[in-house]
Amino acid sequence: MLRTNTCGELRAEHTGSRVTLCGWVQKIRELGGMTFIDLRDRYGITQLVFNMDIDAELCNRARELGREFVLSIEGEVKTRSNKNPEMETGDVEILVEKLVVLNASKVPPFTIENETDGGEEIRMKYRYLDLRREVQKNNLILRHKVLQETRKFLSDEGFLEIETPFLINSTPEGARDFIVPSRTNEHQFYALPQSPQTFKQLLMVGGFDKYFQIVRCFRDEDLRADRQPEFTQIDCEMTFVQQEDVLNIFGNLVKHLFKQIKNIDIPEFEIISHADALSNYGTDKPDMRFDMKLIELTKLVSGKGFNIFDDAEKVAGIVVKGCASYSRKQTDELIEFVTRPQIGAKGLIFAKWEEDGNFKSSVDKFFNSDDLAQWANAMGAEKGDLMLIVAGDTTVVQRALSELRLEMGNRLELRKPDDFKPLFVVDFPLFRWSEEEKRWDPLHHPFTSPKEEDLDKLDDDPGAINANAYDLVINGIEIAGGSIRIHKRDIQEKIFKAIGLSEEEAKEKFGFLMDAFEYGAPPHGGIAFGFDRIVALFGGTESIREYIAFPKNNAGRDVMIDAPGKVSQDQLDELGLSLKK
Amino acid sequence: MLRTNTCGELRAEHTGSRVTLCGWVQKIRELGGMTFIDLRDRYGITQLVFNMDIDAELCNRARELGREFVLSIEGEVKTRSNKNPEMETGDVEILVEKLVVLNASKVPPFTIENETDGGEEIRMKYRYLDLRREVQKNNLILRHKVLQETRKFLSDEGFLEIETPFLINSTPEGARDFIVPSRTNEHQFYALPQSPQTFKQLLMVGGFDKYFQIVRCFRDEDLRADRQPEFTQIDCEMTFVQQEDVLNIFGNLVKHLFKQIKNIDIPEFEIISHADALSNYGTDKPDMRFDMKLIELTKLVSGKGFNIFDDAEKVAGIVVKGCASYSRKQTDELIEFVTRPQIGAKGLIFAKWEEDGNFKSSVDKFFNSDDLAQWANAMGAEKGDLMLIVAGDTTVVQRALSELRLEMGNRLELRKPDDFKPLFVVDFPLFRWSEEEKRWDPLHHPFTSPKEEDLDKLDDDPGAINANAYDLVINGIEIAGGSIRIHKRDIQEKIFKAIGLSEEEAKEKFGFLMDAFEYGAPPHGGIAFGFDRIVALFGGTESIREYIAFPKNNAGRDVMIDAPGKVSQDQLDELGLSLKK
Repeated sequence: MLRTNTCGELRAEHTGSRVTLCGWVQKIRELGGMTFIDLRDRYGITQLVFNMDIDAELCNRARELGREFVLSIEGEVKTRSNKNPEMETGDVEILVEKLVVLNASKVPPFTIENETDGGEEIRMKYRYLDLRREVQKNNLILRHKVLQETRKFLSDEGFLEIETPFLINSTPEGARDFIVPSRTNEHQFYALPQSPQTFKQLLMVGGFDKYFQIVRCFRDEDLRADRQPEFTQIDCEMTFVQQEDVLNIFGNLVKHLFKQIKNIDIPEFEIISHADALSNYGTDKPDMRFDMKLIELTKLVSGKGFNIFDDAEKVAGIVVKGCASYSRKQTDELIEFVTRPQIGAKGLIFAKWEEDGNFKSSVDKFFNSDDLAQWANAMGAEKGDLMLIVAGDTTVVQRALSELRLEMGNRLELRKPDDFKPLFVVDFPLFRWSEEEKRWDPLHHPFTSPKEEDLDKLDDDPGAINANAYDLVINGIEIAGGSIRIHKRDIQEKIFKAIGLSEEEAKEKFGFLMDAFEYGAPPHGGIAFGFDRIVALFGGTESIREYIAFPKNNAGRDVMIDAPGKVSQDQLDELGLSLKK
Repeated sequence: MLRTNTCGELRAEHTGSRVTLCGWVQKIRELGGMTFIDLRDRYGITQLVFNMDIDAELCNRARELGREFVLSIEGEVKTRSNKNPEMETGDVEILVEKLVVLNASKVPPFTIENETDGGEEIRMKYRYLDLRREVQKNNLILRHKVLQETRKFLSDEGFLEIETPFLINSTPEGARDFIVPSRTNEHQFYALPQSPQTFKQLLMVGGFDKYFQIVRCFRDEDLRADRQPEFTQIDCEMTFVQQEDVLNIFGNLVKHLFKQIKNIDIPEFEIISHADALSNYGTDKPDMRFDMKLIELTKLVSGKGFNIFDDAEKVAGIVVKGCASYSRKQTDELIEFVTRPQIGAKGLIFAKWEEDGNFKSSVDKFFNSDDLAQWANAMGAEKGDLMLIVAGDTTVVQRALSELRLEMGNRLELRKPDDFKPLFVVDFPLFRWSEEEKRWDPLHHPFTSPKEEDLDKLDDDPGAINANAYDLVINGIEIAGGSIRIHKRDIQEKIFKAIGLSEEEAKEKFGFLMDAFEYGAPPHGGIAFGFDRIVALFGGTESIREYIAFPKNNAGRDVMIDAPGKVSQDQLDELGLSLKK
């Protein structure tokens, strides 16, 4: 090894030892006849001292070094006269006797510090420099820990890690596949997996009753800020289980991770139905750190001649504790908030039950104090509270109130970063109607099992079928989703038919799976975690990109290596492809 | 859970318990009024009993089941009167009281037993049934264990597992890339990585001094029997190390795996140079389980008027102990062996030093007993030994004798399956001359560091440069390879130039790496293990395919899902591609 110690490990008890350290120049300071260099590596920072009186030539060489030069130094560990309690190595410094410059560095395009002057674009281009910043380094160390702890838990629970193929077939449903032309099978294409779904099911058919994999998945989507074309999934599947078994074991995985990674005992998972999530919180991924439920008001408020309520499919509201004193400016902000195009409410009605007992509202023309007292009663409001009400189509009302609830949670600091409230949402509908495609689409995917009691609705009333499907939500973030799967051919065929897949298409794309179901396929179910998202949750920020070593930007580009790029005509010729003008 | 116990865990002490088991019907036997079913799951086999006297209806239902039906049964654990010591559960059986058929099965296309009647093709097509066979199940369980133990060792040694991207750029050197058209960047392509080489180097530049990843890699090669278009690699890199440090730590990884997986203490790694490997064993991946070194004879045997020796670039031989008694038939077999087109020797000369002291050879016309005694002396042969000699071009002689040595090792049973002799081959040449391309090609890859003392040969004598490169070989199988890398821009530029990459190409494809070298790149090196091959080594067979859950065939096809396949015109249109007629 080119070093005897790291830059993070020397302490007072090492005083007197001769050591060799390697690392990067973080900072150089001159102080009279002394030069101090902070030498950095993955493990910490150690102060080096060069003394003009002891070795002028060496000291002068040190003064010519620049930030991010890579050094190997040899010297003696000394106790510092001026200890730095902020640094783990702050009791000591190295009096350098030998200095080798292992590599020079140009001046980096941004400062290698947590509070850097580099914008995102330049940091992405020089990602290898960005990764030297402590905050980024710690993000990847966190990711490493979550990887190891996840595998340890699942492995100890008897799950087998089994690798599934990356070069598979393109399938007609879901998001777009990335495709990979085959040279040896002309004009045929592999596709990169959006998930190992069918393969893990085949592993269950193959008798591997507990499977997991932490695996890259690919989706050719139009990217949003928080999406990546390649992302990592903790993919799991079990045989001979029911929904409650899956919730139980993977709830335990999450508890294990919180304990090991953050030393937090999280509470038991709440379990609520998809329908209750929507009616109580307006969303299927509610933040459970605070209450502020949506209250249904449609009946109560109609028939008073106020068209906005009378014509609405749904009227509902939330009670914000202690905010009756909100100013006009503040209520205007909230109106602006819910009427933004992303949310799309037509407006916001508010009613204040002031501390002195008076009611004030934005609809005083239509509703008197008695009416407002009725609202307050229905909504469980108390003196001093602010009632916020939205009317319109059900989906718009739910979206608006869900977002407004989160906004008010933020304003009242009810969404504490170190408070974690895990939740399972269950009983999802099996299908949703696609207006675009004029057909039923699977809400999760077409391998999800309908609830047994709903099976007879497959022909007449597909929209009313509930699925054995579940999502795992923490603090409003969807962390995982899964389901009990179909394991019988006839049911799988009916589902394919219901979503508009012709018999030929179904056979061409999923014939192997339906065949497998005829050779003793066991009941099975599973779950998949968004791994990048889990790490971000532990890291305490929402952007998954900060937890990926080499992420892509919003256009799906790696700006560091400048990918994707052109390929040679020879490559295209070999693949039998040409570029269309 | 649908079961209280697995089919592998019930013992005599469970007698009297009521249990629910789930599993597959392995076998049904009728014996008088009794029906016995062997119920199988991942953990073992348990015998079920149905008794006509106790419950005729149930017993009749049991008799109608078929192989591979999936059952859930409830019953009482009974001690068997007729114990089966061959089975772990052989002390007990379950007297079944309740039987639920979870799924039926068609008659499987081959028997689900270790000694199956299914050929490879049908087993690949129904891979999910093949995986139910114990031998295949155990292969994947072995793979799981090697995965976990590898990560545990590296993680404990301070290596961080960091995931690198799969959607990268195509590079001009090495094997062919699989390419992935980008929809959002028209007429541009990602490529799938042949290895994470440049990314792991950038992680070193980023200050992560110990990295590993167990990662899928892709190579679009014309497939041979033992190759897969996608394969798994244990990919590792370290900073501030020299070659000996890398050999040391990864030698320890291999020792750890042998101890944990096979409970074997393997001996210390031998270390020999590439040149010595070739001259002593004729190959750079010698099997060290037995000696039988190649002996150089060119000088000794020339000038006796035997043209085959006189005209040869090289004459060399091996001594096979105790085989002087080989018959004409046997020596003819050996001649046929070395003259096969894959080996390509022109012939084989043999000389026997018989037990009675006489010499006999296939070249008695040219060499008398004194000559042959000289050969024996030079080769270290003794009475009773057989000398096998090949003449010709150096590469042919080495290949032929290397193969012949292995063949004789097999015949003499010197290659014991449970004997493991690990070896590092070092000091590889940096380049080899490509007659096809008329240029120097890197023997490993263009990021390999030349030995410092050979740097000045870069312009004049590239063929004489040795590299800081190493291979890890066990029992003749190359398990891993690696090198100390270049970390300075000027040297990297010279190497690209030496292998015929223009300045523009180098900049376009590897500009990011050369830029990175200018911002404080540390000295670093690493290694990559062929993971599939390691698992196969532990499993005791040579075919890696048996250790991959869903392998592809020799044409790169997944015959189970029938991939690759066609994609729709819409998909091609979106990508701006058309198929060339």
